[in-house]
Amino acid sequence: MSCVVHLKAFGKQNTDEHMRAFAEEVFASETKGEGVRDEISLFEEQDDCPILKQEMAYHLQTEEDTEKRRVKKIFTKLNDQARKVLAPVAEVLMDTPTYLEVPDFQRVAIIGDYASGVTMDDFELSCKGVYRALTIREKYMRLAYQRFPLTTSQYLRDIEGEPFMPEHSVQPVFTSPPKEGEDPFNTKCLPENLSWVARMKDGVIYVYKDAAEADQHKPIENMPAPHYETFIDDMNFLIALIAQGPTKTYSHRRLKFLMSKFNVHEMLNEMEEMKELKLNPHRDFYNCRKVDTHIHAAACMNQKHLLRFIKKSYRVDADRVVQNIKGKDVTMKELFANLNLHPYDLTVDSLDVHAGRQTFQRFDKFNAKYNPVGASELRDLYMKTENHIDGEYFARIIKEVASDLEDARYQYAEPRLSIYGCNPNEWTKLSVLSLCRNFVPHFGKMLENIFMPIFQATIEPHANPELSIFLKHVTGFDSVDDESKHSGHMFCTKSPKPEEWDIVKNPSYSYYIYYMYANITMINQLRKARGMNTFQFRPHCGEAGAVTHLLASFMTADNISHGLNLKKSPVLQYLYFLAQIPIAMSPLSNNSLFLEYAKNPVLEFLKKGLIVSLSTDDPMQFHYTKEPLMEEYAIAAQVFKLSTCDMCEISRNSVLQSGLSNEEKTHFLGADYLKEGPEGNDIRKTNVAQIRMAYRYETLCYELNLIKEGLKTD
Amino acid sequence: MSCVVHLKAFGKQNTDEHMRAFAEEVFASETKGEGVRDEISLFEEQDDCPILKQEMAYHLQTEEDTEKRRVKKIFTKLNDQARKVLAPVAEVLMDTPTYLEVPDFQRVAIIGDYASGVTMDDFELSCKGVYRALTIREKYMRLAYQRFPLTTSQYLRDIEGEPFMPEHSVQPVFTSPPKEGEDPFNTKCLPENLSWVARMKDGVIYVYKDAAEADQHKPIENMPAPHYETFIDDMNFLIALIAQGPTKTYSHRRLKFLMSKFNVHEMLNEMEEMKELKLNPHRDFYNCRKVDTHIHAAACMNQKHLLRFIKKSYRVDADRVVQNIKGKDVTMKELFANLNLHPYDLTVDSLDVHAGRQTFQRFDKFNAKYNPVGASELRDLYMKTENHIDGEYFARIIKEVASDLEDARYQYAEPRLSIYGCNPNEWTKLSVLSLCRNFVPHFGKMLENIFMPIFQATIEPHANPELSIFLKHVTGFDSVDDESKHSGHMFCTKSPKPEEWDIVKNPSYSYYIYYMYANITMINQLRKARGMNTFQFRPHCGEAGAVTHLLASFMTADNISHGLNLKKSPVLQYLYFLAQIPIAMSPLSNNSLFLEYAKNPVLEFLKKGLIVSLSTDDPMQFHYTKEPLMEEYAIAAQVFKLSTCDMCEISRNSVLQSGLSNEEKTHFLGADYLKEGPEGNDIRKTNVAQIRMAYRYETLCYELNLIKEGLKTD
Repeated sequence: MSCVVHLKAFGKQNTDEHMRAFAEEVFASETKGEGVRDEISLFEEQDDCPILKQEMAYHLQTEEDTEKRRVKKIFTKLNDQARKVLAPVAEVLMDTPTYLEVPDFQRVAIIGDYASGVTMDDFELSCKGVYRALTIREKYMRLAYQRFPLTTSQYLRDIEGEPFMPEHSVQPVFTSPPKEGEDPFNTKCLPENLSWVARMKDGVIYVYKDAAEADQHKPIENMPAPHYETFIDDMNFLIALIAQGPTKTYSHRRLKFLMSKFNVHEMLNEMEEMKELKLNPHRDFYNCRKVDTHIHAAACMNQKHLLRFIKKSYRVDADRVVQNIKGKDVTMKELFANLNLHPYDLTVDSLDVHAGRQTFQRFDKFNAKYNPVGASELRDLYMKTENHIDGEYFARIIKEVASDLEDARYQYAEPRLSIYGCNPNEWTKLSVLSLCRNFVPHFGKMLENIFMPIFQATIEPHANPELSIFLKHVTGFDSVDDESKHSGHMFCTKSPKPEEWDIVKNPSYSYYIYYMYANITMINQLRKARGMNTFQFRPHCGEAGAVTHLLASFMTADNISHGLNLKKSPVLQYLYFLAQIPIAMSPLSNNSLFLEYAKNPVLEFLKKGLIVSLSTDDPMQFHYTKEPLMEEYAIAAQVFKLSTCDMCEISRNSVLQSGLSNEEKTHFLGADYLKEGPEGNDIRKTNVAQIRMAYRYETLCYELNLIKEGLKTD
Repeated sequence: MSCVVHLKAFGKQNTDEHMRAFAEEVFASETKGEGVRDEISLFEEQDDCPILKQEMAYHLQTEEDTEKRRVKKIFTKLNDQARKVLAPVAEVLMDTPTYLEVPDFQRVAIIGDYASGVTMDDFELSCKGVYRALTIREKYMRLAYQRFPLTTSQYLRDIEGEPFMPEHSVQPVFTSPPKEGEDPFNTKCLPENLSWVARMKDGVIYVYKDAAEADQHKPIENMPAPHYETFIDDMNFLIALIAQGPTKTYSHRRLKFLMSKFNVHEMLNEMEEMKELKLNPHRDFYNCRKVDTHIHAAACMNQKHLLRFIKKSYRVDADRVVQNIKGKDVTMKELFANLNLHPYDLTVDSLDVHAGRQTFQRFDKFNAKYNPVGASELRDLYMKTENHIDGEYFARIIKEVASDLEDARYQYAEPRLSIYGCNPNEWTKLSVLSLCRNFVPHFGKMLENIFMPIFQATIEPHANPELSIFLKHVTGFDSVDDESKHSGHMFCTKSPKPEEWDIVKNPSYSYYIYYMYANITMINQLRKARGMNTFQFRPHCGEAGAVTHLLASFMTADNISHGLNLKKSPVLQYLYFLAQIPIAMSPLSNNSLFLEYAKNPVLEFLKKGLIVSLSTDDPMQFHYTKEPLMEEYAIAAQVFKLSTCDMCEISRNSVLQSGLSNEEKTHFLGADYLKEGPEGNDIRKTNVAQIRMAYRYETLCYELNLIKEGLKTD
């Protein structure tokens, strides 16, 4: 019987030549039965149906049979498809190209769940709160040209009874990679200088037509700054919301539901998803694009690489002057002699830059690991940009890492460089790569040192050509420190203005974040107006410390790194889901510092539908192999038993989260990558099953719809 | 103050030139204070002691200071040492070279623990049992030229009041790699043929002077076979022992003690061990030798590699005849056409050889994964030796894997080839690489098919030159199947002889094992007598199934693969420790098949002092990266938070466990690698701390001594 079905199947696929071959062999098998038995002796099959036997020889003797048979079937279909899709023939360009079709899958429907197990009043209360929280984020994202999901916006408008205006939604602007033969350092094409004036007021830099207007604080129009008091109000509202009992219960229940729902989806559709991937030609996990969304340039090489580099540099540059201590030139040979060591004797062990068990819960020790052999001189020489050799070695190491990535193919990285805001020329230095570390009179000065040069370069590109070019390729700002250090200060209307903040003690995380955000907002508006690329705010957040950090980022950040502490606040976790905020997670980094690998929430977040990507953070400290990002994926896949679809979804998330240009994203994810749901996914490029995409999209809509329901009732 | 101490320290090391430089700089710093402040502004230090400041500039501003200062100190010492050790000057060749010195470390001593918390009677009973168990293994290891630890032997003799005769201890013989310019396939150097006769009796092959003696079953002397009844008695004794209450309690307590003892050792000496490694020049985890002690040739390439190979082969060989189905030649093109697929469309997903979640607890599905795209034809073509192209592709893939290993350096593998014992010419084929799969009339025939050709090639090398050469490079025999399949049969004196075993049902594991062992024993004696290399028995064992499997291996195997189920029998686990039986563990393989990664006992075993190594088993199914063995180590290191010393100890274990020749082991581990304890460890080659070696050795002696005490009392 089964073989008949199968024949039909083949018939459907009208692969006649195959049929002929098949029939021939069947005939042959009939005649020389003995030969066949040898052929297929692997399969203990009753001999009564030669066709069945023959068929068995194609497939495996397991319950997967039917499974596999289907696969084989569709393989034919696929090949036709692939050809169609690839061939630019008009007649096949239908409305929805076949690759966009979502195969049938089993959906999980809950009937009458709208109040989702809490009292009607609590339900409405929670929905109100969540709704307002989302509008808050939407507002601040727009103001700063950062992203907010269309789907969520649509539901918000829907709730408000407003029409949804796609044009209201904004997108960041990133510089495309240089064209063939184009010189990325060509300063000719920079926009002309303007006579505008940038000046800081209360920690935020405004742009004015001229000095006169600046004196009267009449900033240029259509460049609104975030409103300080409103921001504080919004923040206080959110602080209250995440502590609100009913909303906590509601969010907690929704998250638990999302988790179970995914588990059911997985049980029902795992095979179907896998089938889509099997039928997807040329593309698999290895050749779908992955971006290392969180990696520090200073530790982007692995320990072995750094060791090799140090030895190599010594072989060729031993007599080179690499330091000048109080007017006295110091050669590399002398430097190492002073340290009582010879690079020849160095090993990964004596280099001692790898985070071991000792660093767990010890961020201080971890920072110490940045110093090879515990010697800051070596860090200065090899991993810093402001040194006697102007960061030449650091630049070379980074280049080597970059070319390793090119060799590995399909892997990209967004290295993070450090800027301390100690003096205004840091940027000029950084544009030829640099760092420093003095002290600043007050917090405002630090902000000014960080941001003023950018405003100036943006207003007068030709006055700062190098920096202007450099900024074209900067995609965002991070804010990083040991979050677990608590700062007593609470950010509120009473907080001193940055210019007044002259005490040694650091301001609070939220305070930092607000002023970073405010200035990035202003800069983005200016650059957008000038047709330049914009910047994203991508802080370290929720690696440790208070949940309020995650709250501040919810208001201000396009995407974050770590986010572990979302575990501690169901409301925030649910909000991060609804706002689809990308989170670059580094379980190996966490494993060495804050949280054991198996306890990492990355799997839980992924299942619930939060937008997680995998990143290495610091290969030098955490990784062993030549391909740290692959190591990160491989370990996650092994420990969390990720399916190929899971891994490709994470890879896709990483590209979306990244600061790659629209051009690159189109190339890596497909022309419609900005659309949400299955129509935004080109499986031929991402290798993410359309079933998965549909599940994610429908699940998000379902949750948003609940909130709509909750608000309808009154 | 601290700087004064430090100066003394330097003084001790009498590195005068350093002192001068140091003093100079101190002086300089005194004069141009300003410059210094810049120099060392990284360190918030009170400015009263310039020397201190200067010193700080060398070290890190953390509690590790003292730590690091010591390191720095010894670095000087080390360099002297290294020079000494490397220079072949008579005057430094002292009795114990410095690298053998065990630095002081903190030891854990228990006072008056001899009865270790069980009643005196139970203690004595257990010690008697354990003692006898060890003598049983010792006996069977010697008989087959397999290994038994000297230390344990010494204690056994001690208990018996016998003198310990080192000459009684045997070692396997492995063929050294071919010398420069030597032709490994040269058949000239084969020993001459003998007129001896090999014949199977009751499942065991004996060697006779001639046919006449064979007819009267008068085997050649000094080639004793294991005694069947005695073996059964010994086995039954062990079965009783591992079920014996008191011995279970005792072993359980000892193992718990071993665990806690290691944890204490680690807490006390982790830093000291690390220091040894930091002071060990040139050698680190990356360049200490590791052997993949358990890897199946048929799956030794990773999935991506196989995919690339298939595509490549199609590009060049599409029109090559690769099959002959009933007289009809089939080209590769046709083969793929029949399968309805084009290699161009193949991806890792459609290849579908990676073990996913579906294979957990499903060995059957796992086996199915061996078929690319679920098509046995492709397995036959690419991963088998008996096919139309005589396994050419399979051989080529293995060569590629080998050259990858050479590129990676310091990594070695012992691929396992399959032989089914279906017909006597398998070996001839295998010697030019081959497999097969028919059925055999009875178990005895299978044994004969497996072993007789080896006896013949050993007696008449020139009659079977190819096989004889091949056997020179065979180091052992495995026995592999789905252990979880239970066979009702219980091995006992009543068991049918192999020649009588003609039912379809498989005999029990122990039955298999016994006859494998018996024949390996006979061959080894014959080959040893002929000055040829011997074979080890290295079965899969304790991956699943009954603990009696591990018992049978305890009696017969030089070392095993997996051993997970030692978790289930404290007595066997304790015996494996006392007999230091190497266990090749594959946590990633287990993770896909039998046991979740975090639950793998590999860490527990390592801590207790069992001899574990890490192996990949089947990179094609389990691994993601280009370096499967490194992936295996990296993941273990990350998940189990292994220290460098742990990882290097595992690497060292893997070399010891392997079938690498004495020559290679000497090169990789040091000239004294056969000695036990610290004196057997050359840290310069292994990067294993002498403190660790001492701890292991003293711990083993302590446990053995307890048994001695237990037996003294009566």
